[in-house]
Formats: sequence, C-alpha cells, structure tokens
Amino acid sequence: MTSPADDTFAPRPEPRAPRGFPDRRGADLAGERRLIAALAGVYERYGFEPLDTPAFEYADALGKFLPDADRPNEGVFALRDDDEQWMALRYDLTAPLARFAAENWQTLAKPYRRWAYGSVWRNEKPGPGRFRQFTQCDADTVGSDRPEADAEMVALAVEGLAAAGVPAGAAVMKISTRKLLDGLMEAHGIVDQAQRLTTLRAIDKFDRLGWAGVRDLLGKGRLDESGDFTRGAGLAQGAVNDIEVFLNAAAQGLSRQAVLKALADGKASATRDQGLSDLERIDQALTAMGVTDAQARFDPAVVRGLEYYTGAVFEAELVATDAKGQPLRLGSVGGGGRYDDLVARFTGERTPATGFSFGVSRLTVALQAMEWAGAGKAPRGPVVVLALDAEGMADFFAAAAELRAAGIAAEVYLGGSGMKAQMKYADRRLAPAVVILGGDERASGQVTIKDLDLGRALAAGVSDHDTWKSERPGQQTVPRVHLVEVVNGIVDA
Amino acid sequence: MTSPADDTFAPRPEPRAPRGFPDRRGADLAGERRLIAALAGVYERYGFEPLDTPAFEYADALGKFLPDADRPNEGVFALRDDDEQWMALRYDLTAPLARFAAENWQTLAKPYRRWAYGSVWRNEKPGPGRFRQFTQCDADTVGSDRPEADAEMVALAVEGLAAAGVPAGAAVMKISTRKLLDGLMEAHGIVDQAQRLTTLRAIDKFDRLGWAGVRDLLGKGRLDESGDFTRGAGLAQGAVNDIEVFLNAAAQGLSRQAVLKALADGKASATRDQGLSDLERIDQALTAMGVTDAQARFDPAVVRGLEYYTGAVFEAELVATDAKGQPLRLGSVGGGGRYDDLVARFTGERTPATGFSFGVSRLTVALQAMEWAGAGKAPRGPVVVLALDAEGMADFFAAAAELRAAGIAAEVYLGGSGMKAQMKYADRRLAPAVVILGGDERASGQVTIKDLDLGRALAAGVSDHDTWKSERPGQQTVPRVHLVEVVNGIVDA
Repeated sequence: MTSPADDTFAPRPEPRAPRGFPDRRGADLAGERRLIAALAGVYERYGFEPLDTPAFEYADALGKFLPDADRPNEGVFALRDDDEQWMALRYDLTAPLARFAAENWQTLAKPYRRWAYGSVWRNEKPGPGRFRQFTQCDADTVGSDRPEADAEMVALAVEGLAAAGVPAGAAVMKISTRKLLDGLMEAHGIVDQAQRLTTLRAIDKFDRLGWAGVRDLLGKGRLDESGDFTRGAGLAQGAVNDIEVFLNAAAQGLSRQAVLKALADGKASATRDQGLSDLERIDQALTAMGVTDAQARFDPAVVRGLEYYTGAVFEAELVATDAKGQPLRLGSVGGGGRYDDLVARFTGERTPATGFSFGVSRLTVALQAMEWAGAGKAPRGPVVVLALDAEGMADFFAAAAELRAAGIAAEVYLGGSGMKAQMKYADRRLAPAVVILGGDERASGQVTIKDLDLGRALAAGVSDHDTWKSERPGQQTVPRVHLVEVVNGIVDA
Repeated sequence: MTSPADDTFAPRPEPRAPRGFPDRRGADLAGERRLIAALAGVYERYGFEPLDTPAFEYADALGKFLPDADRPNEGVFALRDDDEQWMALRYDLTAPLARFAAENWQTLAKPYRRWAYGSVWRNEKPGPGRFRQFTQCDADTVGSDRPEADAEMVALAVEGLAAAGVPAGAAVMKISTRKLLDGLMEAHGIVDQAQRLTTLRAIDKFDRLGWAGVRDLLGKGRLDESGDFTRGAGLAQGAVNDIEVFLNAAAQGLSRQAVLKALADGKASATRDQGLSDLERIDQALTAMGVTDAQARFDPAVVRGLEYYTGAVFEAELVATDAKGQPLRLGSVGGGGRYDDLVARFTGERTPATGFSFGVSRLTVALQAMEWAGAGKAPRGPVVVLALDAEGMADFFAAAAELRAAGIAAEVYLGGSGMKAQMKYADRRLAPAVVILGGDERASGQVTIKDLDLGRALAAGVSDHDTWKSERPGQQTVPRVHLVEVVNGIVDA
C-alpha cells in the first residue's frame, strides 16, 4: 500500500460502495447474525455438517454459463484467472455443493448431509431492495432418494423458523411433489413439451390469479387488465376440470391425510400414484417428528423452479396477522425440493438430492417488521464513561474494565470534545447510562451515574415526570464501590 | 439454470475448486467459528459496533492499484462493472473501513469504533498454506488521536486471546511507536529517505538476525550464509551504538516502566519525547484496565508496515512451550497500530485511526495444534438411529426427534444400505452412539443402544476389555422409555 499522504497530485477518490452492494450495521446485521446462529443450532442438532466453500468456482463447474466470448455472460461476476480459466463468484450455495460432493464422493460418508451459509453474488441490475450480494442459508442431503429425506427438510425448516423466533401459527410449510402434476398430465395425455410448460406456468399462478385466471390460461388464453393477451395451453375441458379438483384439494385447514384422500379421487396414473406414495411417507415421517398439520400442509399448487426440481417441492410462508387480526401477506421466506441431476453434471450418474434454502434477508426483514424474537428493537450501545480530564484517565479505564468484567458492554469516550458533546455521543451510541467520574467524585470516592434509557423513555412520553422523580431518578451519585451494582440495575431494567 | 440431463452433448466439467481456494469443513471450520464468536463477545463488550461491508469496492476506493491497462494489476481480483468502472474484491478490512468512514463521516457518532470479520481475497500465487481467500477479524477506532485508543486495542487483543482459549502466559502483546525510531533518526540527523528506510528495515530484522546482523546492516552491509551481500545504511558509529542501546532496552521480563526508563537514557529529540509520552499514557491505561506487564510489554524492535503506520504499533505473539518445557515459536497471530492517513485519501483531512487485526487462520491453527480451548479434539457427530426396515420408519424418526428435543444431535440413517454399512456410516460420522429399533425391540417396547465412543476408546487401547465388560457394556437393550436417559449417559461421559 502506498502512503496516501504522498499522492499529492492524485485526485481524491469518491468514497462510495459499488451500486447494489450495501453496507450493513446495527439492527439489520445483528438480526441476520442472530438468525444464522439460531438456524445453526437446529441444523447441527439434526446432524448436518457445516461446510464452507470458497467464493469462486470455475465457471464450467458453476454451470450457469460457459463464456465463449471475451466478456462473460450476464448473471454472474466472472474473471479470467492467470491461467486463462474463467472463474465466477457463486450465485447460490447449491452449485458449489454439487461440485464439492462430486469431487469428494468416494470419501464422503453417504448420504452426505451438510448445511452452509454465506454470501452469494448476482450480476444483475440493482434496484430498491434488490442487491448484488446477499446471504443464503441452506441444508441439503445428497445421496438419499427416500421421501423421508424430504420430510426431514420440512421438519428442519419448521424447527428453524421456530428457533428464529417466528411464533407458533405464523409460519406454514407448503409441500407438494412434481410427480402429482406429471402424473396428472400423463393421465390426460398432455405430452407436448410446450403445452406441459404452459400448463405448469398456469398452475404456478393459482395463488396470484385464483381459479378463474388459471382456467383461462389452461384453456384458450387470458386477457389481463392492461389488455395484454396471454395464449393458453389449449387443454381439453376434462383436463381443466381435473386440474380444478386437483388445485382445490388443498383447501386451507385440511389435514395432510385429507388432502391425500382428495387427491386420490383424481384420474390415476403410475407417476401420480408414486407421488401420492411419496407424500404418504413424508406425512408419516413428519407426524413421527411431531410436525403438525398446521405447521406443514400438502398443497398441490406449489410448483417452483420448473426445470430444476424433480420430486418433492416445499415453500415456507409466513402467515402473520396485523394488530387488527387481518392476515398479513409476508410471503415466502424459503423453499426447496428434490433435485436429482446436479451432481450428475460432473459424474454422469444421477445422484438423488434434496434441500431447503432460507431467504435470509427476507426472513430477517420479516422478523424485524413483526418484532419477533426481540428483533426490531433498538439495539443497545455500551455504557459510556465520560472522559472529562486527562488526570482521570486511569480511573475512567478502571471503571470501564470493572463494568466489562461484570459482563456489561462499556467504553471510555476517546474523542477530544467536552461534556455536552460527550453526552450527545453517548445518546447517539444508544448508551443505557453514562458514568461520570469528575474531580469531585474522585476526591470523595463517589461516582455519578446518569440513566439515559430513562431519559429516552421520558422523551418518548413512556414515563412521566412524577414517576421519574419518585421511583428512579435519572442521575444519582453513589459510593464508587456501588458502580457495577447501580449500572446493572439500569441495564437490567 | 438449464437442466443438466438435457446437456447430452456437453462435456462433463471436472469437479474441482479453483487453485488456492480451499473447501473447509469439520474441526477447521468449527474452530474458526468458535474463535470469531469468542472475539465477537469481547469486541461488543468493549462497545465496538459490528459492520459488514460488501466483498467489492471500486478499485479507486481500494487504493492499492489503479488499472490503466485492460488487464488489472496483480494482487487483487478485479473486474469491470457494466458501467465500465473497475471493481475489486477487498484484500483487507481496513481499506473498506476507510471508505465507509469517509462516506458516512458526517452522520457517524465519533470516535467511530467498529469490529468486522469476513473473507478477504489476494490474487497471488497459491502454495502450501498460502490461500487466495482467507478470514480476517479486525477492530478499529477512527477519529481518536488519544494514545488511550491504542491502549484499548492492546487490551482488546489481550482479552480476545484469552477468550479464544489461549492460556495465561502463552501470549504476549509487543508494543512500540514509530515515533521512537523517528526520534532516534532525528536525533542522529538521519534524514535521507533511502537511508531512513534501510535503517528501519535493518531494525525490523532484529528478531531474526540478532544484534550482529542488524549492526552490519546499519553499517557497511551484511554478507549472508549464501554469499549474498546486502548493502547497509552506512550510519555513523554513534548512531549504531544508540540503536543497540535502544533495541536492548526491552530485555525479556522488564516491566513497561523499566523499558521506558531505559529508553529515556538515549539521545533526546522532540519526536522521541512525544513517543515516550504516548507510551507512558498507554502504560497507564493498560494498568488501569488490569493488563499486566506479562500480557503486554514495550519492545522498540517492533516496526511493522514501514509506510503504513504513523504512531503506535502492536504485535500479538504466542510463546507456548512444548511438553518438555522448551519454548515453541508459534509466531505472530495478529498486529496493528496507528494509521492516520487512510481516510484522508478520500476527504483530504488527516483522520486519526488505530486498529488491530487477528490472523484468524494462524490463530485457529495454533489453537488446534496446542489443543487449547478444546480445539483439535475430534468433532463429534450426531447419534445415528439405524433404519433397518420400512415399517419402522415412523419409530426411527420419533426416536431421533425425542433425542433432539433433549438437545442431543441425532439423525435417522437415510441411505439404502444394510446394517453393516449403516454401522460403518455411523462410525465415519463420529457418532457417539447408534440406536437400534428392530422388529424385536419394537414388539417388546425396548431399544438397543450401542456405545461407539467406547468402541473407539477400546480400539485406541484407552480402555481395556475387563473395564468394558464390567463397567459399561458397549451394547445394551433397555425399555424404550429410557432412550434419552441412556444416550445422555453416553454423550455426557
């Protein structure tokens, strides 16, 4: 690094982060870290091993793009290594897992179950709430084709949401399997690839458009409010009717067993029956693990990543109500499913895998918005020991050390300003209290402690002046030996 | 993502991570995370705010290089954003802090004290133990020119090392200030820039070469064992003598006050006196915080980053002894100091700052090598519930859920193999125990529990067969209701 002071003639750079790359501090960062710690506890109790893969992968291993020009494709951040190979920053945690599993397949204890968290990067146009670096937190099982492995993903997500602080009843896991839809199309002879995709896309819009919209998209087509016409799948009426029954099989409140019963009434096919049998086994494993119908339900309308998932699919949805009891749509905070092809890219052998990924930022935002798990509360700063004169420095540091030894976050003011600015600093740091050890206090073996929490409460009108005067004065001078005790009383209040 | 199964004609990529980018799992990863968590506790108790800046910075803000060619300089990973601006991955956590502080200077509570951890990237030739992505963990105070802010960095490091599990006496912080050396050179009229740098470089080699080597480098020059000649600084004999006194001022075991006294005997200069006064204040603050002479000592031979630091400099060194009591040189596990120019790159105004950075990988390796803080012990896997028949699945999952509810990591085997392979799997997962709920056990309301820890202990010859038989049998069949109790006994043993 060159000494900046020497760069007399260099223009000053503008201090700013690249577009779409946020700095994070305070409550947002603390909330995300609390969430990851809560999920880590659950994952490891389920026997999932932590894994940390690097930010870079070779572009061909990532699989999303193969640069054949000088400039890499959109979507990922890529650069050429000094041996001219393209490397790219990971855009999710699943592609690196597939590379890792394929690379170490011979020596891994199988099935291989790992959890991971970390940054992922997307080279997309940034926008409000749309970042180019964000955090994911995933659990995956590679090497098990048992539906129980899918059930475990659901149980993991249910417990993870609870550990994160989402109250009972405010989250639901929705489960389906692609085999149900495949079987339905099989039974109705829908084999044309384009027609199949249009059908799946129509079903995927059930939540948003309701049955009337989906019906149009399954038939001739749909004219939306803006006047745009979307061509439909052109299915026969019999197929449309069966899809209606299928989508309505999962009315809110039905038990998993009741949904299975309703689905069994539809037109049979080998694939559908396989799907029903998978769901039956998922239900049994969930029930054995104590996951209730309210926590995890079957919902055939769940489709997800059309070309990615090959079996079970899941989605975590928050279903909170506002202060008036009205349902609040907080939306999906995670999802996953069975993907049996990713490792095969490397090995040529189909390797069954299933996983679940939390949308860490979305879930953190929801926890804060709902003030669940103490999230959203103003974070608390350290107790600030004022630095009022040079002679007292040793005493200020001794007081801070004493507070820290008692487990209280504390610091000595280290700037050069006077009393008023120091009080303002303490307030901006959200200090619960300031400690004043002026010359008078030191001479008389005393200490003055000012309760800033109380000051803020008064300012917010939470308390009133009488209470303040009678019950807990904002400032008190006590013998120095009572420092920790009095500050503890304020911090714990 | 395209469906890999469709890529019939695409060649299979080789599954490997880019050179110099390690995958991390098991004990290494757990050790690093434990270390960061321990440091986080200390930093926040000292009132340092967490900050997370993105991986990318604009290249001009990073400051290390300004690409004027198509291909960026060595040293950093850089790429051009879609608006043609160069972005680079951060190579440390200090440059992004300087950018953040400059960008938010008006609104920050000052002094601004933050801690951070995260990956940094260096585009260097990888080699054994030399990675291109690694973790740093830093604390910095921006906006305080008080020597007490430097003292706080030292106290933070001392407490951090203790919290990380380094036992008392096994770590020492070495402290100096560049003002001592600047003053010494000032007093001896060493003003030529090249001569100054050669002098500093020579002093920096005191630890490695001893006085004889440094003396040659300060004089005419030094011929090393390989026959290479390094030209010396060509100092006059009086200056060389004073530097000898200076370097010897910090004999092992001297108190901070004694070192200050010895240094005060040297040739005076305004800068040196300023340095001595800074160290005096650092000593007082350290003493007030309970940091002993054994934990942090003054050592004028500490130089560090020649063109970077402007005042105090610190280095954390581990000084363990091996089983025979011989000193083990584990080397530096962190360092830092005062750098007053980094923010000025952006603002044009000199902004005092001081910081300390832990070498996270080095410290993790040392903790594991010394088996400090439980590091280096084999990590423990989950209890494995064997999956012996399809009918028992619900019982297997219920047993695993029961164990997890009691806080015991547990999983059901989810592969498709038989009993023998399942036992091998459990062993490779380092399971403390396996739970067997076969048809017989289920019919009779019992459960069989096999103690794998004991099996491993026997295999390692730690226990003997008689003890095994009489005191704790490796396998026991007990009523199903005693599952948690028995497994707890094994896990806690």
